[in-house]
Amino acid sequence: MAKNNENRIILPEPTIRRLPWYLSYVRMLDRMGVEYVSSTQISKELNVQSSQIAKDLSFLNIRGKTRIGYEVSSLVHELADFLGFNQHHDAVVIGTGSLGTALMQDHGLEHYGLNIVAGFDVRDEVIGKQLGGVPVYDIAHLAAWQREHGVSIAILTVPVERAQQTADLAIASGMTALWNFTPYRIKAPEHVVIANTSIYAHLAIIYNRMQGQTS
Amino acid sequence: MAKNNENRIILPEPTIRRLPWYLSYVRMLDRMGVEYVSSTQISKELNVQSSQIAKDLSFLNIRGKTRIGYEVSSLVHELADFLGFNQHHDAVVIGTGSLGTALMQDHGLEHYGLNIVAGFDVRDEVIGKQLGGVPVYDIAHLAAWQREHGVSIAILTVPVERAQQTADLAIASGMTALWNFTPYRIKAPEHVVIANTSIYAHLAIIYNRMQGQTS
Repeated sequence: MAKNNENRIILPEPTIRRLPWYLSYVRMLDRMGVEYVSSTQISKELNVQSSQIAKDLSFLNIRGKTRIGYEVSSLVHELADFLGFNQHHDAVVIGTGSLGTALMQDHGLEHYGLNIVAGFDVRDEVIGKQLGGVPVYDIAHLAAWQREHGVSIAILTVPVERAQQTADLAIASGMTALWNFTPYRIKAPEHVVIANTSIYAHLAIIYNRMQGQTS
Repeated sequence: MAKNNENRIILPEPTIRRLPWYLSYVRMLDRMGVEYVSSTQISKELNVQSSQIAKDLSFLNIRGKTRIGYEVSSLVHELADFLGFNQHHDAVVIGTGSLGTALMQDHGLEHYGLNIVAGFDVRDEVIGKQLGGVPVYDIAHLAAWQREHGVSIAILTVPVERAQQTADLAIASGMTALWNFTPYRIKAPEHVVIANTSIYAHLAIIYNRMQGQTS
C-alpha cells in the first residue's frame, strides 16, 4: 500500500474494484435496517473470501468487532467517503455522440459524486445546444474553458480514430484524469490518470463465453 | 486454451480484453490505407509487448509473415469475426431507467453486433412506450416473451437492490447471458455467462488515483 501523505491512501486496483461491491451490499442492508454484518456474511453474499474482505477493509482502517462484525451504517459512510462518492467531482464529456449524450443524461453518475458540467464537440449541429440540461461547446474552446472552470476530469466518448488526438488535446488543456470509453489504448504522461471502460470488450467476452454454452 | 469443439475457442479473459484494442487500431490503419503492420508497431502503439501480441493472435491462428508482418485488412476481418462483432446478437434491457435508456439509444452497440430489441420494466409510466425506438414491456411478461423470441442476452440496469432478484427472474425466463451494469455481484448457476461492467467502480479508481496527483 502506497501512502503519499497522512490522509491519502493509494490502494491496489483489485481492492478498489471490490470496495463498491461491499458498499452496494451494505447500503442495501442499511436500508433494510440491519445493524451489524460479519465478513463471513459479506463473503457468502458476494463470493469473495472473508479474509480478503477483512484485508481490504483494514486498508481503510475499518475493523470489525469479534462476534459482532462491522457496524453497517458506519461501514456505508466510511466506504462511500473513501471511494469519493460523497464528494462532488466536476467533469466534461468530450464527444457528444450517442454514448456521450447517454452519459450526460444518466443521473446515476451523480449518486457516485460525478457532475457532468459541460460537453465538447466538433459538430456545428450540437455546439451551442444543451443535452440533458448540459451545455455543449466547441472543442476549440476547451483550453480557455478549462482555465476558467478548473475541471480536471474529461470523459472521452469520441470516435475511436480521434481518441488519441482528443486525449492529447484534453491533457494540453489541463485535464489530469481521462475516463476513456473508446476501445483505443490511450498513451498519456505518467501524471495523468487514465481509466478505461471498454464496454465493447465486455461484449466480446459475452459472445465468446456464449459460444461455450451452445456447442 | 480450452477448445470445446473444432471451431470454437474459449480464450483467457485478458486476451479477449486485448483483442478489441488490436481491432480498433488495425481498423484505423485500414481506413488510412495501410496494408501491413508488424507486431512491433502494434506493440509501440498500444503499449503491449510484441511477444504477447503474437501469442494472442496465434490463438486465432493468425500469423504474421517474416519482415512483412500482418496483412491489415484480413486482420480486421478475422478479429471482428472472432470477437463476434460481425454477427447480430439480440438482447433485452431490463430496467429502463437513465442508464438503461441510454444504452437503448446508444447506436454504437450495433457496430459491435448488439441489437437491443426490447426493454422490460416494472413501472406503469414506461410500459407500452418506446424508448429510442425500442418497445418497453412489463417485466411480468419476460418469460412468455423470451419463449416466443428466444433472446439469450439480458442487460441488467435495474437499481442495485433489485439486481439479484431480477437476475434470478431473467435466468428463470431462459436468459443465458447477463450483462450486469449494477455494482452488485450477482450469483448465478455455472452455465450462465455473467459480464460485469461496473462503471462506478472505475469512477472510484479515478477519484483514488487523483488523490495521488494533488497531494
